[in-house]
Amino acid sequence: MNNTSSSPNWIWYPGDYEIWLGNEMNNRRTERGAFFPHFWKMDSHYVLVEFSKKIDLSVAEEIEIAVEGKFNIKLDGKLQFGMPKKITLPAGTHNLNIKVWNQATPPALFIKGKTVNSDASWKVTYEDKEWIDESGKASDTSATIYMDAATSDSFISIDTPPSKFKLATQPLYAVKREKMNEGVLIDFGKETFGFIKLHGLKGTGKVNIYYGESPEEALDIKYCETLDQLTLNGSTITDDALNISSELTENYVLANSKAFRYVYITKDAGVNYADISMLYEYKPVQYRGNFRCSDEELNNIWKVGEYTMHLTTREFFIDGIKRDRWTWSGDAIQSYLMNYYLFFDSETVKRTIWLLRGKDPVTSHSNTIMDYTFYWFLSIYDYYKFTGDAHFIQQIYPRMQSMMDYVLGRTNANGMVEGLTGDWVFVDWADGYMDKKGELSYEQVLFCKSLETMALCSNLVNNEIDVTKYEKLASDLRAKLIPTFWNESKKALVHNRLNGVQQEQITRYSNMFASFFNYLTPDQQQQIKTSVLLNDSVMKISTPYMRFYELEALCAMGEHITVMKEMKAYWGGMIREGATSFWEKYNPTDKGTQHLAMYGRPYGKSLCHAWGASPIYLLGKYYLGIQPVKAGYAEFSITPNLGGLKWMEGTVPTPNGEIKLYMDTKTIKVTATEGKGFLTFVSKSKPMASKGVLENLDNDKYRLMIDGNEEVVVNYE
Amino acid sequence: MNNTSSSPNWIWYPGDYEIWLGNEMNNRRTERGAFFPHFWKMDSHYVLVEFSKKIDLSVAEEIEIAVEGKFNIKLDGKLQFGMPKKITLPAGTHNLNIKVWNQATPPALFIKGKTVNSDASWKVTYEDKEWIDESGKASDTSATIYMDAATSDSFISIDTPPSKFKLATQPLYAVKREKMNEGVLIDFGKETFGFIKLHGLKGTGKVNIYYGESPEEALDIKYCETLDQLTLNGSTITDDALNISSELTENYVLANSKAFRYVYITKDAGVNYADISMLYEYKPVQYRGNFRCSDEELNNIWKVGEYTMHLTTREFFIDGIKRDRWTWSGDAIQSYLMNYYLFFDSETVKRTIWLLRGKDPVTSHSNTIMDYTFYWFLSIYDYYKFTGDAHFIQQIYPRMQSMMDYVLGRTNANGMVEGLTGDWVFVDWADGYMDKKGELSYEQVLFCKSLETMALCSNLVNNEIDVTKYEKLASDLRAKLIPTFWNESKKALVHNRLNGVQQEQITRYSNMFASFFNYLTPDQQQQIKTSVLLNDSVMKISTPYMRFYELEALCAMGEHITVMKEMKAYWGGMIREGATSFWEKYNPTDKGTQHLAMYGRPYGKSLCHAWGASPIYLLGKYYLGIQPVKAGYAEFSITPNLGGLKWMEGTVPTPNGEIKLYMDTKTIKVTATEGKGFLTFVSKSKPMASKGVLENLDNDKYRLMIDGNEEVVVNYE
Repeated sequence: MNNTSSSPNWIWYPGDYEIWLGNEMNNRRTERGAFFPHFWKMDSHYVLVEFSKKIDLSVAEEIEIAVEGKFNIKLDGKLQFGMPKKITLPAGTHNLNIKVWNQATPPALFIKGKTVNSDASWKVTYEDKEWIDESGKASDTSATIYMDAATSDSFISIDTPPSKFKLATQPLYAVKREKMNEGVLIDFGKETFGFIKLHGLKGTGKVNIYYGESPEEALDIKYCETLDQLTLNGSTITDDALNISSELTENYVLANSKAFRYVYITKDAGVNYADISMLYEYKPVQYRGNFRCSDEELNNIWKVGEYTMHLTTREFFIDGIKRDRWTWSGDAIQSYLMNYYLFFDSETVKRTIWLLRGKDPVTSHSNTIMDYTFYWFLSIYDYYKFTGDAHFIQQIYPRMQSMMDYVLGRTNANGMVEGLTGDWVFVDWADGYMDKKGELSYEQVLFCKSLETMALCSNLVNNEIDVTKYEKLASDLRAKLIPTFWNESKKALVHNRLNGVQQEQITRYSNMFASFFNYLTPDQQQQIKTSVLLNDSVMKISTPYMRFYELEALCAMGEHITVMKEMKAYWGGMIREGATSFWEKYNPTDKGTQHLAMYGRPYGKSLCHAWGASPIYLLGKYYLGIQPVKAGYAEFSITPNLGGLKWMEGTVPTPNGEIKLYMDTKTIKVTATEGKGFLTFVSKSKPMASKGVLENLDNDKYRLMIDGNEEVVVNYE
Repeated sequence: MNNTSSSPNWIWYPGDYEIWLGNEMNNRRTERGAFFPHFWKMDSHYVLVEFSKKIDLSVAEEIEIAVEGKFNIKLDGKLQFGMPKKITLPAGTHNLNIKVWNQATPPALFIKGKTVNSDASWKVTYEDKEWIDESGKASDTSATIYMDAATSDSFISIDTPPSKFKLATQPLYAVKREKMNEGVLIDFGKETFGFIKLHGLKGTGKVNIYYGESPEEALDIKYCETLDQLTLNGSTITDDALNISSELTENYVLANSKAFRYVYITKDAGVNYADISMLYEYKPVQYRGNFRCSDEELNNIWKVGEYTMHLTTREFFIDGIKRDRWTWSGDAIQSYLMNYYLFFDSETVKRTIWLLRGKDPVTSHSNTIMDYTFYWFLSIYDYYKFTGDAHFIQQIYPRMQSMMDYVLGRTNANGMVEGLTGDWVFVDWADGYMDKKGELSYEQVLFCKSLETMALCSNLVNNEIDVTKYEKLASDLRAKLIPTFWNESKKALVHNRLNGVQQEQITRYSNMFASFFNYLTPDQQQQIKTSVLLNDSVMKISTPYMRFYELEALCAMGEHITVMKEMKAYWGGMIREGATSFWEKYNPTDKGTQHLAMYGRPYGKSLCHAWGASPIYLLGKYYLGIQPVKAGYAEFSITPNLGGLKWMEGTVPTPNGEIKLYMDTKTIKVTATEGKGFLTFVSKSKPMASKGVLENLDNDKYRLMIDGNEEVVVNYE
């Protein structure tokens, strides 16, 4: 029993605030002034929850109580009158139970005392099953499921309850204004996100605001993806899309933020305004990871990637900021991985994982997409590996079980997954035909890895029955995987099997995933490098989404120089096209406004898409070469690779520290403030280290244990 | 395709408004000024739903749109700007889709046009799974689950959306005021329910209001079950329990209604008021059923039963009005049955069934009580039998399946149910020891009937796989039932079996249910009458709840005269004790304030409890003798029985009509405005009928087909 927590936090039922906030955020999507919610089940919070804590006080203590919702307080089973803001707890051992009901926002509690404070040590349940029989005897509640209360660093003040959370804003000003046709085109200089602000607004009539990620989009009032319309009536102003009216004051800020670089504004003659600016809306984050090198283009790619990540790191990790503004599991797992090399914002990772999972019963795949369900599983173990946060696995594990039950309930007679009606088999946006029917090798590879993830996580939560169950399921599928899809004449995994017959098509997806999941023999691994990955006759990948994995697979095979060239060509290509953030899709052969179109719409493409920022991850993990070996960087590995650069330097954040690395062709400098691990590198001659014992592995490969906070300098050749 | 509905209704997702309103109502329970929500999972509405309708217009039509929530409108797949209050639909065939998001209250829609109106013909889903791929092609949504939109007669005006629903109120005045100790005791003359109103209130200080169903309770300020406290501060008044402050005006009405007959009011010297009255809060219902007879005590019992039913028929059928104010499945099924003989308020039956079921996943029995889960199943088929409303079965069937899955997931190796941790095995409040361990015969009987109900309902929804499944499960259990529990030496079903061994105790419960479910042989049926039902050494039933079934079992065996005596003794006994509504529990041997105590609390007993009103049902079904034979009274049976009365007359409502009956020792008069069926009666000599052909059955039993609206008069002896 320990109630001497240092500081209070708002607490809630795990996942509930996350789901509620997700609804608020996802529902800010609009399409040409229409509200645009998502097409999968929108879950919600438990409307009634009970928080409880056993406390032990040497002296009586007054506690302050703040609650989002209607509530009651039970002290040692006795209900207290009303909904008090303060009560005094007598000395001694007590049970404190607080039940909160809230339909509109998640039930949340804040308790502040000298020693008794609401925090993650409180228990919470949505169903206490505590009834009293005729004689006054209470029921046996030993089967009641209690979770640890959820908290967040954002909610440590009594005055800022969870439902009031808002991102930060700061004023930003246009860099260019230009009269065009009947209106004014305003350029904010780069892709941005926020609320348009009209200064000195007055009169009667309409104001139309057309947003664009490109000038073409903003000026195309018939087809731009987002727009706003205001109606002024002398004294009042109405946001016509939202049906919100207010008194007309000098400065008007729109209610819904939008993503854009350009806005095109037209107005009726009876309306006037003096100026337009914006409030940039953003999540304050710390840039804990960084990268610089001898190649300015690559430095630029890092900077644009960093900015793309910042724009898409909001209440949650979202896909693109203009159109969807939604959380998508396949997009999110890449954001998480980039995040570990940039912000190391664990709160937002967890929050996004909770939201993507939602509540039971499971009625569809994550975002309805089969592959996205599998990425959801994979992302959880990734999170554990980078952060070492086993408590989160414990909390989310029941929802992993029910999600996997859903998947297992939809397997075919071979124990494999196929797209059933209602399932979206996504794989990738591809520039050519890709079959989605039957058993896709890509989906089975991800399914197999998901089962292995379940086995790993069931082990972490000490659920032995599940360990046995999932290990068996994983090894059964694993045994079938390669024999089913490997085609010896093609030296590759085929794309799919239909009615028991291998189909002709080869795609990159399953081959690259099978490669870095180590599902292939070393021979096969080498074979697919030439038969698939470096084979131009196999359909090219044109999304940064799958380029992420493609380049990762090549890095994992030691093709750093090839990947460096690709990064400069592909991401450098976008920058040469004027990108200030990275795109949803990029085909280097497209010209002009072709770059803007997608989904059959002229400006359908997102020009700021999280999955565009993958160089962040590749540079951190494969060039700086830093990654965790044991959970939370208790052990790490550093295998730096210049990939043709003259020098590079950078920092990779760890849960409570960082690893700094500098490398040129003769020197490597490492400082690690947390964990320990081997620095592994190649040197033609015997290297020298400022500290520690250098070990020669095979041939010209050396390693050095890095342990301690001091900088270690290695001279090599 | 039919969009020419006569009048618009607010529509919502089936069950969602019901669950939301249930939370509002259940959460008005208080215990001595503390908020007191229930201990089982509180479900909530789907926060995002899509309403849709295919329409076919010969001419363009303007529709008015009202929505509870943020919404969008798609016409033929094209999103419309903003959230318009009116749009014009062009002539032709169209798809109209409206998506509504609302966290706080259920998404609801009202469309009013010349021919296009929102009604039950609209479809609704919480997950349309309609995504658009890269090429702009929409997904295959053939697996999307659409329900028929829910409506209610209460919501036919655009200005009264579902979330604004309130019960009716009317002023009521005290019949007696008396200074007692430091306060005033006010008597409203009978049990009632409403909001206390203070007239001419002013000053500074506190006002305390103590409620009582008895004067003892109101005057016992330390132990009365409910109370309120107001704090006046010259210009403002605060409801201390709810933390609600408002400006102090002359007349103040409390925010939360309470049940009471008496209130005891004390106040600080600085506060003054001129008078106290109340606003009686009630559901407007039509008294469609009635009963009068030659026995004034029985007429009184009917009147008090009727009033008890009215007080407990509110937003939902609740148990008791003072304490719980909750919906309980075992209580509710009795309310439904009484309701069919009194109000025939089908809306409130359906609403209560939806609320009691809640949402998936199922995490406990109904109200956590195993027996109450079974009554929930039984109540659905009852509802169908009385109303003929097969559409409701169709809508609720998926939740019946998942509820039964929960039960089947908790059976033991014998396929029987036992109380597991977290399950409340209730049976009855008994005045003596009753074992709740192992396999209770009572629970298996209800379980078996529930499986039979599933088979019947799966047949109604044409689910052939389920028919086979549930018929098999039911017949398997049925085959074990009597062999497991029948004890030939005791000539009765024993109460339970523990570790495979029949236990000694005999209770009335399983014996009476097995009797009217026809699970016993005719011989066994006769045997239990003497060995159990009329055997005083078997623990007596002291709740009107189980008396309901006990007396029903006796009526079913033809013991009308015995039951009549019992009704007069038991319910007449409560009236002689001063009851103005019937009680939760009544033990005739209790004295004075013993009648008020329960749950270890001096005023814990509810003196207005729905299950107290069972004479309504017994008199309608077994004395007037009217009940449906085919669903919805398409065919009925009338088997009147005076049970010792000189004469009786009454009306039993049917879905769209009524059956009136008068009977004395020589005449029977019947008028049925709906359906047809046999009047069956006993006559010593050959009877005469004003219409139709009398058939002589065996001995002195006769029957006559009643078909048509005219009164039929039978003379008999």
